[in-house]
Amino acid sequence: MYDPAQARIEAESVKAICEKYQQNEDPVFRARAIQIKEQRADLVKHHLWVLWTDYFKPPHFERYPHLHQLFNEATKLAGAAGAKQATDPAKAEELLDKIDEIAKVFWETKQA
Amino acid sequence: MYDPAQARIEAESVKAICEKYQQNEDPVFRARAIQIKEQRADLVKHHLWVLWTDYFKPPHFERYPHLHQLFNEATKLAGAAGAKQATDPAKAEELLDKIDEIAKVFWETKQA
Amino acid sequence: MYDPAQARIEAESVKAICEKYQQNEDPVFRARAIQIKEQRADLVKHHLWVLWTDYFKPPHFERYPHLHQLFNEATKLAGAAGAKQATDPAKAEELLDKIDEIAKVFWETKQA
Amino acid sequence: MYDPAQARIEAESVKAICEKYQQNEDPVFRARAIQIKEQRADLVKHHLWVLWTDYFKPPHFERYPHLHQLFNEATKLAGAAGAKQATDPAKAEELLDKIDEIAKVFWETKQA
Amino acid sequence: MYDPAQARIEAESVKAICEKYQQNEDPVFRARAIQIKEQRADLVKHHLWVLWTDYFKPPHFERYPHLHQLFNEATKLAGAAGAKQATDPAKAEELLDKIDEIAKVFWETKQA
Amino acid sequence: MYDPAQARIEAESVKAICEKYQQNEDPVFRARAIQIKEQRADLVKHHLWVLWTDYFKPPHFERYPHLHQLFNEATKLAGAAGAKQATDPAKAEELLDKIDEIAKVFWETKQA
Repeated sequence: MYDPAQARIEAESVKAICEKYQQNEDPVFRARAIQIKEQRADLVKHHLWVLWTDYFKPPHFERYPHLHQLFNEATKLAGAAGAKQATDPAKAEELLDKIDEIAKVFWETKQA
Repeated sequence: MYDPAQARIEAESVKAICEKYQQNEDPVFRARAIQIKEQRADLVKHHLWVLWTDYFKPPHFERYPHLHQLFNEATKLAGAAGAKQATDPAKAEELLDKIDEIAKVFWETKQA
Repeated sequence: MYDPAQARIEAESVKAICEKYQQNEDPVFRARAIQIKEQRADLVKHHLWVLWTDYFKPPHFERYPHLHQLFNEATKLAGAAGAKQATDPAKAEELLDKIDEIAKVFWETKQA
Repeated sequence: MYDPAQARIEAESVKAICEKYQQNEDPVFRARAIQIKEQRADLVKHHLWVLWTDYFKPPHFERYPHLHQLFNEATKLAGAAGAKQATDPAKAEELLDKIDEIAKVFWETKQA
Repeated sequence: MYDPAQARIEAESVKAICEKYQQNEDPVFRARAIQIKEQRADLVKHHLWVLWTDYFKPPHFERYPHLHQLFNEATKLAGAAGAKQATDPAKAEELLDKIDEIAKVFWETKQA
Repeated sequence: MYDPAQARIEAESVKAICEKYQQNEDPVFRARAIQIKEQRADLVKHHLWVLWTDYFKPPHFERYPHLHQLFNEATKLAGAAGAKQATDPAKAEELLDKIDEIAKVFWETKQA
């Protein structure tokens, strides 16, 4: 049920929207793109929050003491990437990297 | 903008629904109550997540090292209180207490 | 299925929001609170309307000739309590009292 | 802002759906039609409730003592016309007649 | 499952709204009517698009070479009828005629 | 305002979901993925329909006589890619290619 892939798919959307945004200067297209980007970034946040609250249990947080902070940084990055003025694909790339760090921990706990 | 009162209002709803649930044995009323309770518990979670990601900054987490865990416990309690089988007002009361612990930290950071 | 408790739960939310509103002067918090209050007051109205149309039958209205007016006053009070400028918990209290009058009739008809 | 025409437009939709339902025996089409019919009947109810609570004032109810009952009958008819098994256009026609009775009172109060 | 009647019901709503619009000069009523009209016109478009993409197959388009254009004209008319400034029932009537042309083709393909 | 990039972003999501689907055998994850995939494929359809009805005008269809069919094939592919049993990224790739054909025509008309 839980899988960081959900957050990743939405974060990839955020990045793709930033790229298309750079290629089209039409203000109506851009306004619409910004709006969808915010919704997708909110979905990233939501998937990460659900993972943090519903999948990870106290023993996980004991074994991975930096896990709380990792999630907090990831959701903050998602918020930043969803902001109106954030249209640089590099910002979305940072978010993708952070999600991958979480995914690494996630799959270790699954194999344990 | 941020205020733990938002989470508290919804948690009070969760508790009130548990109380009314105990007083009415009609299965249709109960099914409906369970449904609303789940929605309100989801709102509690959402308000707490937003507070944790958007209001609290790295220096806060340094000063209050247990804050991450406090939020994680609170959102887990909200999830538990929203579950189908959770109809005991005492469970909602626990959630309210945890929200009050967060509120205490919140108001300290506001005055700082 | 029908129970005035549904309207009561939402009306209690309206009252709780008025109380939190008085305690936090942040304009963004207040704007958000006003918005939620309106939604909850709309739910009060909705639950009362459903009760009036779907639960109560012609013989009930014959036995309780003031029942139509009671509902009309209650839904009007809910509308007033949901209005932007209504932030006095006393107003929400009036609404709660009116819902209790309806609940009294409701439970009499259930026992009949 | 208030106008019984809103309820009438939706009630006409309910009637049109009943007519198309009679002409197409495809079970998927019928299931979909039933669903839309219920939504439109709910809109009829909603528009009537709003009119009853928000437009009409105590002096109106004094001058038209049967007005409460008229609305109660109309919303009950809307509920009946929205029900799964109700596919007879004649039923929707009854609802339209009742809405017209309300509209007659409405326009008298507007001219007063 | 597919039936041009769905588009027709919504297009009849669009026409009915235009008629009521002409009869009530209240600006709030009109603003609300315009809003509902747009939603219903969007539903017309949607039902037509679904029919064009999901019901009609390549052999149909071969047999009826003007069918693509017929749908394109119909959805353009729906867009026009849903526009803010479009309040002439005659415009909605044109849309209804175009839907009837589609319905004629539709029923021929059903009997084939 | 119009740009095939909107359809492309959603189609890329569809493809990404197919890829993650192949990598996670958890039935709950897969069920959820299928659901999101259907929503994103519906958005592809919607963006293409809007482009076909609202952006392209009669002279465009005269100059590009295959344009109607191109859109019809693209929306049919989107429908296929959104279907429950469609989890092969290659299918989503076909959709992306078709969208690129439309994009080519689109940008030619923009430069004309």
